[in-house]
Amino acid sequence: MDITNVQHSPMGAHASFTLGHPGPHGGLGLGLAGPAGQSVYVAVEDAPGSGTYHALPFFAADQDDQLARFQGGEEGRPPVPAGPLTAFSADRVEQVLDPVTDRWTVGPLDFAVHSPLGALPEPGAAPDEALRRAVLPAVLAEFTVDNTGGSGPLRAFVGYAGSDPYAGMRAVEGPGFTGIGEGTRTAITTDAPGARTAIGFDIPFILGDGRHPGDGFGLGQTGLLVFEVPPGERRTHRLALCFHTAEYLTAPERCRYLYNRYYPDLEEVAATALAEFDALLADWRRACDALGAAALGEDRAFMLALAIRSYYGSTELLEDAEGRPVWIVNEGEFRMMNTLDLTVDHSFFEARQHPWTLRNVLERQLAHYSYTDRYGISFTHDMGVANVWSPHGRSSYERPGLTDCFSYMTGEQLLNWVLAAAVYAATGDTAWCAAHAPALRACLDSMLARDPGADGVQTVDSDLVAGGAEITTYDSLDTSLGQARSSSYLAVKGWAAYRWLERTLHALGDPEAAAEAGFRAGRAVKALLSSVGPDGTVPALLDEPDGARIIPVVEGLALAHLTGTDVRSEPELTAALRRHLLAVLHSGRCRFPDGGWKLSETSDNSWLSKIYLCQYVARELLGIPDDADMAAADRAHADWLRHPTESRWSWSDQMISGVAAGSRYYPRGVTAVTWLLEDGPR
Amino acid sequence: MDITNVQHSPMGAHASFTLGHPGPHGGLGLGLAGPAGQSVYVAVEDAPGSGTYHALPFFAADQDDQLARFQGGEEGRPPVPAGPLTAFSADRVEQVLDPVTDRWTVGPLDFAVHSPLGALPEPGAAPDEALRRAVLPAVLAEFTVDNTGGSGPLRAFVGYAGSDPYAGMRAVEGPGFTGIGEGTRTAITTDAPGARTAIGFDIPFILGDGRHPGDGFGLGQTGLLVFEVPPGERRTHRLALCFHTAEYLTAPERCRYLYNRYYPDLEEVAATALAEFDALLADWRRACDALGAAALGEDRAFMLALAIRSYYGSTELLEDAEGRPVWIVNEGEFRMMNTLDLTVDHSFFEARQHPWTLRNVLERQLAHYSYTDRYGISFTHDMGVANVWSPHGRSSYERPGLTDCFSYMTGEQLLNWVLAAAVYAATGDTAWCAAHAPALRACLDSMLARDPGADGVQTVDSDLVAGGAEITTYDSLDTSLGQARSSSYLAVKGWAAYRWLERTLHALGDPEAAAEAGFRAGRAVKALLSSVGPDGTVPALLDEPDGARIIPVVEGLALAHLTGTDVRSEPELTAALRRHLLAVLHSGRCRFPDGGWKLSETSDNSWLSKIYLCQYVARELLGIPDDADMAAADRAHADWLRHPTESRWSWSDQMISGVAAGSRYYPRGVTAVTWLLEDGPR
Repeated sequence: MDITNVQHSPMGAHASFTLGHPGPHGGLGLGLAGPAGQSVYVAVEDAPGSGTYHALPFFAADQDDQLARFQGGEEGRPPVPAGPLTAFSADRVEQVLDPVTDRWTVGPLDFAVHSPLGALPEPGAAPDEALRRAVLPAVLAEFTVDNTGGSGPLRAFVGYAGSDPYAGMRAVEGPGFTGIGEGTRTAITTDAPGARTAIGFDIPFILGDGRHPGDGFGLGQTGLLVFEVPPGERRTHRLALCFHTAEYLTAPERCRYLYNRYYPDLEEVAATALAEFDALLADWRRACDALGAAALGEDRAFMLALAIRSYYGSTELLEDAEGRPVWIVNEGEFRMMNTLDLTVDHSFFEARQHPWTLRNVLERQLAHYSYTDRYGISFTHDMGVANVWSPHGRSSYERPGLTDCFSYMTGEQLLNWVLAAAVYAATGDTAWCAAHAPALRACLDSMLARDPGADGVQTVDSDLVAGGAEITTYDSLDTSLGQARSSSYLAVKGWAAYRWLERTLHALGDPEAAAEAGFRAGRAVKALLSSVGPDGTVPALLDEPDGARIIPVVEGLALAHLTGTDVRSEPELTAALRRHLLAVLHSGRCRFPDGGWKLSETSDNSWLSKIYLCQYVARELLGIPDDADMAAADRAHADWLRHPTESRWSWSDQMISGVAAGSRYYPRGVTAVTWLLEDGPR
Repeated sequence: MDITNVQHSPMGAHASFTLGHPGPHGGLGLGLAGPAGQSVYVAVEDAPGSGTYHALPFFAADQDDQLARFQGGEEGRPPVPAGPLTAFSADRVEQVLDPVTDRWTVGPLDFAVHSPLGALPEPGAAPDEALRRAVLPAVLAEFTVDNTGGSGPLRAFVGYAGSDPYAGMRAVEGPGFTGIGEGTRTAITTDAPGARTAIGFDIPFILGDGRHPGDGFGLGQTGLLVFEVPPGERRTHRLALCFHTAEYLTAPERCRYLYNRYYPDLEEVAATALAEFDALLADWRRACDALGAAALGEDRAFMLALAIRSYYGSTELLEDAEGRPVWIVNEGEFRMMNTLDLTVDHSFFEARQHPWTLRNVLERQLAHYSYTDRYGISFTHDMGVANVWSPHGRSSYERPGLTDCFSYMTGEQLLNWVLAAAVYAATGDTAWCAAHAPALRACLDSMLARDPGADGVQTVDSDLVAGGAEITTYDSLDTSLGQARSSSYLAVKGWAAYRWLERTLHALGDPEAAAEAGFRAGRAVKALLSSVGPDGTVPALLDEPDGARIIPVVEGLALAHLTGTDVRSEPELTAALRRHLLAVLHSGRCRFPDGGWKLSETSDNSWLSKIYLCQYVARELLGIPDDADMAAADRAHADWLRHPTESRWSWSDQMISGVAAGSRYYPRGVTAVTWLLEDGPR
């Protein structure tokens, strides 16, 4: 089996049943910045009546120390007996993962977790019934135990040790189902007849000394659902892993999960998930087939599946005090809300799966999280952090006087809003563009003002930096990618934005503005081409010809192509970027020793989400062959996500020499969805 | 200053602003099993404009490691500069504590925290206005900074580093106030003009490099309220420390905090606390004076103040789905709900302060948490744990087949319910007794059935123990106090219950039952007297004459006296118990080397709450002098609560050789309120 945690996550519930990394590193997490760090038990008796068990290796072997406190301290206590539970060796466990289903098989045990994929209708625009199903805050699982050769009933159990600081474990019950949960927030439930619940301090306490579970004891943080499979049978038990909170989640503006419209509590979530199990699973499997990820090679399929699940694990679908939907993608472990430099990278995925969420974010950003500096409009880095809304017009992140992390991203965020709007518009909503014509025009004017020399490139910093310097989304990298002024990375993104604004403003009846946008697009190309050095590469900073070389100079081509600009109409630019990319990749300047892509030759700090996007550009738009070298890079990138310890963070973005060092448990990997748009074999 | 954490806690909010133990061991905790473990900052600049500060010693000096993740890992980061903040040495800090006010003074800084005491009217039975004020989930503070000799404005700040796993720090603002808070749950607010908020990763980040707070940055878990005191002035800034949750708190029956009737969010709590600051504080100070704790000696006053605050820190005032009030006292770190063997010990305090809460618990216990075994009615150990209600008729604690911790307490809990009802009835509610006459009669019948030999003493175990043995509230002690059958501790409690039932059933027109109760009371006295050994002491177990000796055999006298039984009417019993207590105390059999009381001669496990109650019995009912020996015991007991590390748990009950080993952060110490009933000098 792989050792990477997977975030099995509903859509819009900021929740994950995280599992995959050996040890107590997964569990049912709701609203957390990382894995819940719980022991999860998926266990089967070694033989009928043996009283000893083997489980998937997702738990801690230690005894709970809470028990000792009840018993008056450690003094004079007998030594801890060997527990009745042993982990299956990870190398015996078979695992198969796709964007919906994650399945582990070992011995008589088969455990499959199914997470939602597919329609997420816009509230108010679709039948209520479809929305009700889409926002169900649950994932499903099937727990199969094979006792066909058994001589007596075989016991098996699933469960977890809760970690919420505020509530205890409990039975969660309703008509036709039972389960165990933690307070009002998480639960594992089943409709399997005869399943019983047990709560206690730890596994030896619950199952040791031949004790029978289900005696109603309520102390301790470990909860189990215990099954018995009769001899001669192979039984599949259906499980619903449920999440819920009715609390007002955000402040100071109060929003709560929209699912509260349909599900007042965990019990209602469980009842629905179990009653509609077959239909939900069929829908999700159909959506998985429609996505087409199975056509990808093994490493790419693994990374895309992981990325999709981590993306949904970071999403929140709320409603405000007036009942209007509010879509938030949390920034993984950092939990900043709708970080705009991530929004643009999520835009391809959202435009494909549920474009209204992208529109929802764009409109909130424009209404509340835009501002005007001396050059014109731009957009804040984020809308707040950890369910705290920033004051309107401010991000939680940006502050003056800096030249690196936490400085302003004014120029880049202006481009990001325009390009994310362009991706949204490409889904066909021309009326939305028309309604936002003044904003688009203001964005163009602001872009123009940041290019006072009319070079097609941002050459000034916002006055908000107050003696510092603007940065880009690569905020912890050196100036090769971290500096906004004269950045070739931003120049190509700017060109893509100008080209889209050119066509769009023309269609909206503003030919003068369109012409200026077109002119600046041409100037940007010229600036880029004239920067090409003797070795055929483009410098990271256009005004530093001998400076570093970077991969993401090509990134903007993806945004151009996916917003309707024919990149073949700029053959000189694409030819130059092709030469650049081949040169930096083949010389090893932008490669790690393992073959993975190194975004900047001067830094060991690389971002997987951006690598994915640039790989798409390389293969689909620059004709770089999808060869063994590319496959070696895929293997390296996938291996970064299989790091011996850091893979507990599931999908992570920022890698220092291949080790996740920040931006962990992160949504941004869905840039890999662009791979599904490629023509050739993958 | 003392080093003991104090739970500065509202009434019924299961919340504490805990402070006093040096290091990051206090903070704003809502719904927790122990101190929040936060850094709390109460700081003043060393000199006007110096940029360096000293603070009360309640914070961690380490830098926050979250910052490193934003900056792309630890690699290549500059070393951490020495922070601008230093702790005042604890031995320079003056502290004065009473049941309402806890005040620290050092240099130019004076910080006083005021917690509620006084009226807690019954919902529905009192004007809404009084209830609204009583349930306000806040404590108040005054932060005084003396800059009378200053040459320029002197900066000062208060703040904390939040620890909620789900939400970030934020500004909490409203008309006339500002503050910093964590999500929707906790906040420190002020109405001081000119106060500004600042949020960041840690103190060096916020205040280092001459940075100015208040720039709107939102990342990091540290939030500060920053004040400036002009030269020549000494200013007192008012603070409200606020708690709130709108979540349905309990499951499966849904209850939420009753304060939601009046306060929908933190902002409303802060607005009320600050607007009514003077009136609230005056009320609380009046209630403190009325309590009369100032008449106690230093050690007793310290322990009573600490105990009262820890009691309120464990209380929850909820309302159910029909709006009926639900009073819960959580069992400290164990969080069992309304543990009945604690209820009886809280009964003296509740009967004095707000008898309706005692009635509320008694009625819920009778309606939902009573059961019938083969001998008759009894009551469950608790009603659930950590906001999870146990199934009706079950506790979270009791299970069959055991002889110690987690076994059934059937016999003891039967007595506890009767005696707590008796304490409630002694407040004058005879109608309540009349309405519950059938229950009282059932209780008597059940007591009689557990005494098949008509010895006045429980001699059988409930059939629910299924091969095990019943235990007492001393569940982690050896059989001297842990065994229920033939327990002399329970025999005296039983006698107290029989005497009260005798009078009460007589008044209710059931002379036969009354007579039988009186008969058994006499038999109990006889059994006790006939057990007295040659040395004048009573054995812990009546059927083990050579067994251990214990102090709590006298405990039941308190319950008898406080429920209207004239203990002087049993001169032989009181004389015997006086001889017993003098013998075991003066022989050192029931003393620790430090002079503290040792409840059982065969165990180092002692319970402070019970010691307090037995001290009351000794002095007030057995005429044992309040001499230097008694004062030495007080000093020892107070020192147990001043342990170098374990005093972070504030008031704790279960002490092994004077070190808190369980039952920490605990409500039960309010048995010390009986000291205020003593006649002599204290």
